[in-house]
Amino acid sequence: MTHAGGTIADERTVSALGEFGLIAELSAWLPLSPRVLVGIGDDAAVLAAPDGRVVASTDFLLEGRHFRRDWSSAQDVGRKAAARSLIDVAAMGAVPTGLLVALAAPGDLPVSWARGLAEGLAAECARAGASVVGGDTSRAGSVLLVTTVLGDLAGRAPVLRSGAAPGDVVAVTGSLGHAAAGLALLSAGVSEGPLVDAQRRPAPPYDAGPEAASLGATAMIDISDGLLADLGHIAAASGVLIDLSSARLTPGDDLLAAALHLDRTDGGSTSRSTDPLAWVLGGGEDHALAATFPPGAALPPRWRLIGEARSGTGVKVDGQPWSGPAGWDHFSAGSRGTTPAPPEGRS
Amino acid sequence: MTHAGGTIADERTVSALGEFGLIAELSAWLPLSPRVLVGIGDDAAVLAAPDGRVVASTDFLLEGRHFRRDWSSAQDVGRKAAARSLIDVAAMGAVPTGLLVALAAPGDLPVSWARGLAEGLAAECARAGASVVGGDTSRAGSVLLVTTVLGDLAGRAPVLRSGAAPGDVVAVTGSLGHAAAGLALLSAGVSEGPLVDAQRRPAPPYDAGPEAASLGATAMIDISDGLLADLGHIAAASGVLIDLSSARLTPGDDLLAAALHLDRTDGGSTSRSTDPLAWVLGGGEDHALAATFPPGAALPPRWRLIGEARSGTGVKVDGQPWSGPAGWDHFSAGSRGTTPAPPEGRS
Repeated sequence: MTHAGGTIADERTVSALGEFGLIAELSAWLPLSPRVLVGIGDDAAVLAAPDGRVVASTDFLLEGRHFRRDWSSAQDVGRKAAARSLIDVAAMGAVPTGLLVALAAPGDLPVSWARGLAEGLAAECARAGASVVGGDTSRAGSVLLVTTVLGDLAGRAPVLRSGAAPGDVVAVTGSLGHAAAGLALLSAGVSEGPLVDAQRRPAPPYDAGPEAASLGATAMIDISDGLLADLGHIAAASGVLIDLSSARLTPGDDLLAAALHLDRTDGGSTSRSTDPLAWVLGGGEDHALAATFPPGAALPPRWRLIGEARSGTGVKVDGQPWSGPAGWDHFSAGSRGTTPAPPEGRS
Repeated sequence: MTHAGGTIADERTVSALGEFGLIAELSAWLPLSPRVLVGIGDDAAVLAAPDGRVVASTDFLLEGRHFRRDWSSAQDVGRKAAARSLIDVAAMGAVPTGLLVALAAPGDLPVSWARGLAEGLAAECARAGASVVGGDTSRAGSVLLVTTVLGDLAGRAPVLRSGAAPGDVVAVTGSLGHAAAGLALLSAGVSEGPLVDAQRRPAPPYDAGPEAASLGATAMIDISDGLLADLGHIAAASGVLIDLSSARLTPGDDLLAAALHLDRTDGGSTSRSTDPLAWVLGGGEDHALAATFPPGAALPPRWRLIGEARSGTGVKVDGQPWSGPAGWDHFSAGSRGTTPAPPEGRS
């Protein structure tokens, strides 16, 4: 995947191109799949839904809140926007099939940036087996995206948040805390490295969603707000206590090294040292999948056991409440945004 | 339909309620239908798609561009947001089934406003036989909505923009120019009356879309950008000339009276007089449906014949190019917005 390269220089602006010109260009840049019966350019798209049901979810990606154009390339923004939505369908046990993209942007946005965005959207859709099928454009003071994903259950029952039972095991697949560590590094001026890349370009494990459904998952969610916060949704919806084992959530060397780097470069401006476990437990945006399975389920190696469901309420770590940061709430006073760099990102 | 009444006073703000509190309240206010297999509150919604295909479209509704909170109630904004999307599915010949709503708002937005919005969304969905099935929330400096509609073709072929052939008749159902006249009146300080209501609360003829498909419509579109502009899309996609008859598009007494009122109150500040035919030909936002049918098609009375398709290109009126305003382009320099009051709205 080229990062900022691969884009033909195009110094026109979207304003000069006009709405219909922009839509025509975007649609020319986006490949289609055989599932798409009617694509971009009519009043609506028509997509195959062979299962007789359709899975659907919609997500914001706002400049200044979820990304910064000086931190992420257009391709990265497109990939992140698609990833956030596509994984929601996978978390139901479904296969993503199509994506609708609403893009509002300043009139002076370069057409080359819009093209990069389309490339990123298309690349991430391709990872998941989906394609961009429609959208809308408008003008706004900053770039804002709303992506809506559609998916197919292929005959499986949807895996809800409400199906966990006492005795179930809790497992996760995908990265935990990498995107949060990357955000802390970016905020500290580090612009390169695998953790920064994880913040810019999350790589959710799409195919693990249908896999979990086939393995008998009783509940599932994608980790967008943080492991504790999102498992809290499963605990609440299922009426169980989820108890995690910190020994199974030990931060890897990459997170330990990032914490050490941040503490060294901090210059003593804060009295607290960086706790990489807080990234693992509280960091969202990696879009890992967490699921509960009946006790004794035979899980492929990529599913790591991290705890169990018991009678009770809430989420605990080693049987105790966790006192660190818990996750995102976009409307609460303390919610984290991509800019300004949130202090919680380094707590 | 109560307008601003019917809402229980709630002086809390969405910031105080928090994201998850807001989602819980919104979902409590929204009724579901039997088509909704999994509704708000999980990673994604699951909706019946009995046809084996799903129709989908997404639309912006931005404060300052598509509505003003001092001109429209929260209920009106909800109805307009839903209407703009729902009619897109009808214009394919499909029945709207579900709506996903992405809502970003300032933290100090009153919860009562969000509740009014939900009421408006639910009311318009009910008119179309659909329901709100999911969404997302975020914080932004102004209110912005992106609605994604899903629909079912019930075994019919989708009616595209590209199917019109020379000899076809062109017909329309629903209002033309009312919303544009209402915008001109609002801009001139008139805040009451049927045309102002048409701007605040368009009433698209949802069931006419599937009806047209059953009647053999060869092409169809909803009039969101203006009759000439939208028929231009059919002409271009179908490779035909569409010729309209001005005698069949005569503005009604309500539009004539509005034009007269605006000219009288203008005080001579512009040299041009208001041409109500420009509202009919250039005004969008009523979300009427325009369709082409084979010659001799027997159409119910609500479909008014307004012209015919011939060999050639473009859209003409009485065989001549139209020199007035043509429609919206959200990125072009001269695009119209709800605020500031656009001069084109009165041309």
